[in-house]
Amino acid sequence: MGEFELIRNYFAAAPCAQAGEGVVLGIGDDCALLSVPPGEQLAISTDTLVVGVHFPDACDPFLLGQRALGVSASDLAAMGATPLAFTLALTLPEVSADWLQAFAQGLNQMAQGCSMRLIGGDTTRGPLSLTITVFGRVPSGLALTRSGATPGDLLCVGGPLGDGAGALPLVLNQRRTEASTAQALLARYWSPQPQLELGQALRGRATSALDISDGLLADCGHIALASGVRLLVERDRVPLSAPLLAFFGQDAALQAALSGGDDYILAFTLPPSLLADLIDEGWPISVIGHVAEGQGVTLVDAHGQDVTPITRGYQHFRETR
Amino acid sequence: MGEFELIRNYFAAAPCAQAGEGVVLGIGDDCALLSVPPGEQLAISTDTLVVGVHFPDACDPFLLGQRALGVSASDLAAMGATPLAFTLALTLPEVSADWLQAFAQGLNQMAQGCSMRLIGGDTTRGPLSLTITVFGRVPSGLALTRSGATPGDLLCVGGPLGDGAGALPLVLNQRRTEASTAQALLARYWSPQPQLELGQALRGRATSALDISDGLLADCGHIALASGVRLLVERDRVPLSAPLLAFFGQDAALQAALSGGDDYILAFTLPPSLLADLIDEGWPISVIGHVAEGQGVTLVDAHGQDVTPITRGYQHFRETR
Repeated sequence: MGEFELIRNYFAAAPCAQAGEGVVLGIGDDCALLSVPPGEQLAISTDTLVVGVHFPDACDPFLLGQRALGVSASDLAAMGATPLAFTLALTLPEVSADWLQAFAQGLNQMAQGCSMRLIGGDTTRGPLSLTITVFGRVPSGLALTRSGATPGDLLCVGGPLGDGAGALPLVLNQRRTEASTAQALLARYWSPQPQLELGQALRGRATSALDISDGLLADCGHIALASGVRLLVERDRVPLSAPLLAFFGQDAALQAALSGGDDYILAFTLPPSLLADLIDEGWPISVIGHVAEGQGVTLVDAHGQDVTPITRGYQHFRETR
Repeated sequence: MGEFELIRNYFAAAPCAQAGEGVVLGIGDDCALLSVPPGEQLAISTDTLVVGVHFPDACDPFLLGQRALGVSASDLAAMGATPLAFTLALTLPEVSADWLQAFAQGLNQMAQGCSMRLIGGDTTRGPLSLTITVFGRVPSGLALTRSGATPGDLLCVGGPLGDGAGALPLVLNQRRTEASTAQALLARYWSPQPQLELGQALRGRATSALDISDGLLADCGHIALASGVRLLVERDRVPLSAPLLAFFGQDAALQAALSGGDDYILAFTLPPSLLADLIDEGWPISVIGHVAEGQGVTLVDAHGQDVTPITRGYQHFRETR
């Protein structure tokens, strides 16, 4: 038995590889088998993370496992899907039992939190990278897409933005800050919590949705383009967390929120009449603007003045190396 | 728009990314959406190919695209599944329009041949590698697994074996042979034809199945282990192609067939009573042995003498670099 077959067996024995809802056949055959309940559809998303591009070479494998699956599951949240399962294609330069164990523990912790099962994958030798494909179920016709935003809708987000970008100088050991601030921001980076329940609550309500990974303005641009509308973002209503404000100050915190990316917070559009119910249900929603006729994204100040930055995104870690 | 976003748009416009059966939503949103007909299940398999490990650095991108998808689709054939769709996670060290165009053409050709749709993926910068996840549908309860082989069943294969391994010295430019022989063997390597129709014909008939990727004896070992049986392989009944015999001679051709891998031909077990019908239907089936009580795989000669080699697999390209 080769060392990579040993790794396959190792993952097959992981807690997150045990039988679960919808999983007819898991790891060990030519294919896994999923059953999808009648009246539902399968949502599928694939993400690749490459060492030196998406994460630093020396990063903690537990945190890497946790973050990799969390980021992928966030795409299911953005569709309003209920997570079912995932596959893992892991490429490793060498086999280290310690590394694998820590990585699997991180992966497993996120899998348990999201109720997802590992149903298959591949393990190969090569430069460290991983590709995760996630599967969720969603009632037919109720998936949240990017294309239904309608003039008059509110533009909302599911929580404070910019923390992921705020954590980057800490992840890269470029800057320091006090322990509680660093801890809060690093948790947002290494353990993104996909807003799965919020996504499901938005089914049949939100007219469009996505998870913010490229930065608020860039991602609002995706909704505007797919829906054929204009999105107006009110700068002073963009929610910022206390740790981010403490670390970055107001101006840089706002910049991180507008263009930083790596948030994995939902952004969505909503008919105004549906807002009160969602607030009553306790969802942490902030209204940050609205949908208008036209195209593109416009950032406005408290007086409605256009303050859209000329460059909307700065290059975050993903792009800089 | 970054260059990798351009690549995503490029693939989104590929012929194989157009709408097809079961594809509710393709490339461009947070997730793709698949619908699975009532009474059917979804078969899923993931494979990663890494440059310098699974294919040579300088290989033709058209052939790479074709082979990568063919190899993955073969896992659907092994389950008796009907192909629906696939995702592609492509990691590239640099963006070359020529390379991408040729790769996409090869991918597209295989996708058309298998009636599969590209429904999503990811494009990142890094050392060249690709992860393909394939999706097929199969009537509930009729998927071919490795675990149902029963003593008394016949052991069969869907065609001549060893050609993939026979092509390796040509792929690696280690040996030469006459053009027609080289062409035939290289076609088997670079353009493996997944036995999808045969797999579907075996639903409800074969008691176990897989596609031969690790070599006949090693893969028969997988069936024996999963089914809790012993497989007897009759050496003289293992089918060998004329090009392989011409290039390798009898002994080395047999060795390639037994242990070479990269065949992507189905191996399966079948109640004897069902053989005649399958032959009548015209399937290119060879009976090469049978299933007995016990465990493991035994190779026997024409006199029933045990001639099992001590080492069952040689290290093919996948393992040697």
